[in-house]
Amino acid sequence: MVDFKMTKDGLVLVIKDYESIQVILDQIVSKLSQMKGFFAAGDKIMLMMERHEMHSHDIPRIVSLLRQHGIDVAQILIGESFQNDLSSLSRMKLLEERETRSGTKVVKKHVRSGQAVVHSGDIVVLGNVHAGAELLAGGSIVVFGNVKGTLRAGLNEGDSAIIAALSMQPTLLQISGYILREVSNYEEPVIVQVKNGKIVVEKAKA
Amino acid sequence: MVDFKMTKDGLVLVIKDYESIQVILDQIVSKLSQMKGFFAAGDKIMLMMERHEMHSHDIPRIVSLLRQHGIDVAQILIGESFQNDLSSLSRMKLLEERETRSGTKVVKKHVRSGQAVVHSGDIVVLGNVHAGAELLAGGSIVVFGNVKGTLRAGLNEGDSAIIAALSMQPTLLQISGYILREVSNYEEPVIVQVKNGKIVVEKAKA
Repeated sequence: MVDFKMTKDGLVLVIKDYESIQVILDQIVSKLSQMKGFFAAGDKIMLMMERHEMHSHDIPRIVSLLRQHGIDVAQILIGESFQNDLSSLSRMKLLEERETRSGTKVVKKHVRSGQAVVHSGDIVVLGNVHAGAELLAGGSIVVFGNVKGTLRAGLNEGDSAIIAALSMQPTLLQISGYILREVSNYEEPVIVQVKNGKIVVEKAKA
Repeated sequence: MVDFKMTKDGLVLVIKDYESIQVILDQIVSKLSQMKGFFAAGDKIMLMMERHEMHSHDIPRIVSLLRQHGIDVAQILIGESFQNDLSSLSRMKLLEERETRSGTKVVKKHVRSGQAVVHSGDIVVLGNVHAGAELLAGGSIVVFGNVKGTLRAGLNEGDSAIIAALSMQPTLLQISGYILREVSNYEEPVIVQVKNGKIVVEKAKA
């Protein structure tokens, strides 16, 4: 179920637990057409996923659908439930970055704790991904820096997506439906792929 | 001027010197419609650019146009002119790789001398780019390995494209119209960008 709620911090799109992402996307489109004229191009809202842990892989599709309708998601809120008070919820601030014509999002700075980068294509970060930061990519993720945060790749593209980084001690790695929670400390460049139904971390052969 | 020539090695699309790439693309489309029924989907041809040094930045657009018409370019031939003998021409074999849904081409092996990777989007190589190899990308290029060959990025996207590699002593670096011929030897990860009208090579801050 989806609903827009007005709070003192701004408009929040609340997405409760669900079974089918397609139903949720259809509901968003139908809400938006009901609210036609309410939004202006470039408007910013917050997105709240009540079951972030279960549904975070759908965030790129939701963000991308909203963007197609001219609405930017500024923050992702994570938490159990709320009335009109957002103060108890964790917030991930979405880093807005130029999107290249070829569909890759290039982030030319560090991604810090409390920040998230969400993109339906590939993400390239020229900097570090700190603990408490999260990248959610429809395609592959390449970090020219160190990774301590959470990386979720292949959320649209599936298990052909890759993750690569100069060094990593990530909190969590995900490619498509495969998740790796305990990752060793790699001080050198590594490439992460799904091979034979498993996430494999390999040193780059430079 | 464009022309198809049959040789004993196969069909060659010859592109002579030109002023406007748009005229060349239009001529290719018109040739193809004249030859309708001649090609079957997946047919492979060779592409010969008489003035490769001047026009190599247009190769991704030509290869991409041909692919839209179901024709794969298997090799790029470089040289002055020829009758029906290709033996005196340099050949770059095009590496065929799976293209991801998000528009990035991921090459999971070394690119060796005499090989080229041409793609209208971004290119990610999980391996080395040897001397005598060439990458031509419409967007950005990321190499998780060492670069000794020639990298041309931003050929469609312009100077917002970037190049990144784990280490490099490249033959030539190009981003959009900017070319760097003499590049120092970098033993550590570097990021190459256009800043204030100049190509700048910087060490990654990992």
